[in-house]
Amino acid sequence: MHNGIFCCVRSGMSMKKYFSIVFVFLFTLNVSAQESDSIMLRKIYTEILLNGKAYEWLEHLSNKIGGRVSGSKEAEQAVEYVTGIMKQTGADTVWLQEVMVPHWVRGLHEVAKILKSNQAVKPLQITALGGSVATSAEGVTASVIEVRSFDELKKLGADKVKGKIVFYNHVFDQTKINTFEAYGEAVRYRWYGASEASRYGAVASIVRSMSSSLDDYPHTGAQGYNDSLQKIPTCAISTMGAEELSNTLKEDPKLTVYLKFNCSMQDSVKSYNVIGELRGKSKPEEILTIGGHLDAWETGKGANDDGAGVVQTLELMRSLKSLGIRPARTIRAVIFMNEENGLRGGRVYASEAIRKNEKHIAAIESDCGSFTPYGFGLEMPEEKKVIIRNWAPLFRPYLIWNFEIDESGADISPLINQAKVPGIGLIVDSQRYFDYHHAASDTFDKINKRELLLGAAAMASLSYLLSTYGL
Amino acid sequence: MHNGIFCCVRSGMSMKKYFSIVFVFLFTLNVSAQESDSIMLRKIYTEILLNGKAYEWLEHLSNKIGGRVSGSKEAEQAVEYVTGIMKQTGADTVWLQEVMVPHWVRGLHEVAKILKSNQAVKPLQITALGGSVATSAEGVTASVIEVRSFDELKKLGADKVKGKIVFYNHVFDQTKINTFEAYGEAVRYRWYGASEASRYGAVASIVRSMSSSLDDYPHTGAQGYNDSLQKIPTCAISTMGAEELSNTLKEDPKLTVYLKFNCSMQDSVKSYNVIGELRGKSKPEEILTIGGHLDAWETGKGANDDGAGVVQTLELMRSLKSLGIRPARTIRAVIFMNEENGLRGGRVYASEAIRKNEKHIAAIESDCGSFTPYGFGLEMPEEKKVIIRNWAPLFRPYLIWNFEIDESGADISPLINQAKVPGIGLIVDSQRYFDYHHAASDTFDKINKRELLLGAAAMASLSYLLSTYGL
Repeated sequence: MHNGIFCCVRSGMSMKKYFSIVFVFLFTLNVSAQESDSIMLRKIYTEILLNGKAYEWLEHLSNKIGGRVSGSKEAEQAVEYVTGIMKQTGADTVWLQEVMVPHWVRGLHEVAKILKSNQAVKPLQITALGGSVATSAEGVTASVIEVRSFDELKKLGADKVKGKIVFYNHVFDQTKINTFEAYGEAVRYRWYGASEASRYGAVASIVRSMSSSLDDYPHTGAQGYNDSLQKIPTCAISTMGAEELSNTLKEDPKLTVYLKFNCSMQDSVKSYNVIGELRGKSKPEEILTIGGHLDAWETGKGANDDGAGVVQTLELMRSLKSLGIRPARTIRAVIFMNEENGLRGGRVYASEAIRKNEKHIAAIESDCGSFTPYGFGLEMPEEKKVIIRNWAPLFRPYLIWNFEIDESGADISPLINQAKVPGIGLIVDSQRYFDYHHAASDTFDKINKRELLLGAAAMASLSYLLSTYGL
Repeated sequence: MHNGIFCCVRSGMSMKKYFSIVFVFLFTLNVSAQESDSIMLRKIYTEILLNGKAYEWLEHLSNKIGGRVSGSKEAEQAVEYVTGIMKQTGADTVWLQEVMVPHWVRGLHEVAKILKSNQAVKPLQITALGGSVATSAEGVTASVIEVRSFDELKKLGADKVKGKIVFYNHVFDQTKINTFEAYGEAVRYRWYGASEASRYGAVASIVRSMSSSLDDYPHTGAQGYNDSLQKIPTCAISTMGAEELSNTLKEDPKLTVYLKFNCSMQDSVKSYNVIGELRGKSKPEEILTIGGHLDAWETGKGANDDGAGVVQTLELMRSLKSLGIRPARTIRAVIFMNEENGLRGGRVYASEAIRKNEKHIAAIESDCGSFTPYGFGLEMPEEKKVIIRNWAPLFRPYLIWNFEIDESGADISPLINQAKVPGIGLIVDSQRYFDYHHAASDTFDKINKRELLLGAAAMASLSYLLSTYGL
């Protein structure tokens, strides 16, 4: 095949034959490119699987720093730590991009109890939702109305809801194969639950944790008040707690629940996106953004959400640099701040990119956990998807096969929506993610080193191809 | 499409048109079959994901019974427990198939120490390999010769090896994406290590655990003596221990190692394969075998190896029965005994099948752990692979996509080899398996309920198709 051109120069030929030969030549070029790309991907995977540092960095981020909600001391420490690592990776330039972030502080006391009609008391595991107001100092005690959906709530109306605690007991749909779909259905009760309950005069709301596991860890997460309605305290309850409360309500509908938590919203705080670049050799003005987010709920240690994405992004920089790869286009690693409760990092990044008229070819995010990768989500026009899908054979040896999902990541969504940049998400095995997500169980012991590194290698490989060929 | 035949009866038509219509009819049938199969697979997945019992059964097998090496009291308890569950699943018939199994007993004392030239002592974590002879009562103390391969050992020869302990320090190849490939390369040092060391006059051998994790758990497993050579004591060392020993040897080549363990081979014991059948409705004489193995090394709890395969097989029976599915061909669940150190269960099962002239259409095994499934290994002639690959679209919604691997399972290998039965292996994510395999870390806390159930659902779905259409 590599001798195709030499043959055609020696022989007389028709126009048709000429085009055939040109086709063969182009095909040959293409095969050669795929061969050298294939060799490069093997180098990237080998470098990361043998010498990757992501696991050790994540151990530090999870165990030495821990949960790091926006505006906290831990978030500040994490910015400092990650800046140091970014420099260690050998990035050509490293800088901080200022971001003003909300500073919501969970109180020390989070208590909930079922108070039965017969005076018996049962404790419940709850945690305030991000952004919730506190209960009053004496707490809230009220009877409970359980619903499975907003429709049910609406049908009950103010008559049945006023003065009560609304308990959203939507069960995570275990029949979904991709757990993100089940999460998508459940999370609206977290986000809109307090407002909708308040609409009908409820005094507080409790949401069943959107978790695939039946255990006693409540899962927090952001919620969004409707400014035109009274802001009521709102919290998540563990899945076991939800079962307990629901069962107890069946036998004792007159029970009350006592809730007390003392969280508070404080003044906004100056924080940062941490950015590092490997400057492009031939087209430095064309930028590929890669990232994850640094902030993490302080219920857990932010190992999977999204310490994994942070260290995979750093690992990508380290591995390309240590292989001596100087990308054709600029690869820019962005460790975003404030994905969890504001998306301020992603917003500032996009608006600065637009203000500076930067040319972004694509953005990749890892924010689905540290598990075995199996694909890339493509949030972009069809003709660009085709380009990436043509690379699928290069990824098959690494068990990366799915290029059909059309989602990417939250931090890069402002860039995708406002600057029409193609977005890409690392797709990983989703079975375990919502066991730990936003809960005290999101800890470093859940991380498998090989799985984490395989995710970094997949991202580094796609980054290499995008930086070489553009999109 | 479903009205194709009705149209052609009403209209006059040419032969060509007739064939077109016949084609459309067959295509319609095929599409209809795929549609109803698709609905059935959704029912199977839903039933298992919502009502599956496999996780609870595995908890019992792992935590209440624990490690269950062939011939042990625990293996006997496990046979009893699984027989009860098999009956509970609603199998039409349940019986025990007698198997004589070797009874190797690990001693209570397993000790190893590095004795440095300067009198310093460092403990090492080791465990005797299955089938090993004991050391003498006073133990073995000898200097150590480290090798990375049999080639190195051969080059050293008797001159350098005689009277010493051979230490095989072959490092698990982390660059392999499918960890079973790395295991395949490493495991020969466990299986042949003692014999090859003995050939050159070694007094004992130590093999680095074939583990993807750097930790302090030694991984046991079967080894095979060459009967024409002296049987020397042989053990596995943890990966951290191997690093320690190798590093210490570099600074102090004259160190000795002390080894003591008191395992023993006892008389063979009567044990059983546990078998249950869902009798076929239209072709009961055609049999599909599904299985996993019940015995497990007593270093750990046998949760992943192969408690998972056992409970997935039981779950398959439970789910089909509770969905009211009466298969066209007979589905036979076989919980094999003695995969780990003899394969006696698999051998008896195959020889009985041959003796009775049974007609086996295929055999499926799950013995790669409880992790997310992504394919089926096909060990069969190409024309049969094509039939199964035609079902691939039915499995895509469940993220089962790989039908390219040509391996199945050890317990069904006698049936495949001696009776030429097509063999199928459940292929699951392999990244974590060799972290725990044959080690004290093979415990129930490593099991994820959804992953385990998805494996059962994949097997049940393929069993449904095979029992309906044959192979």
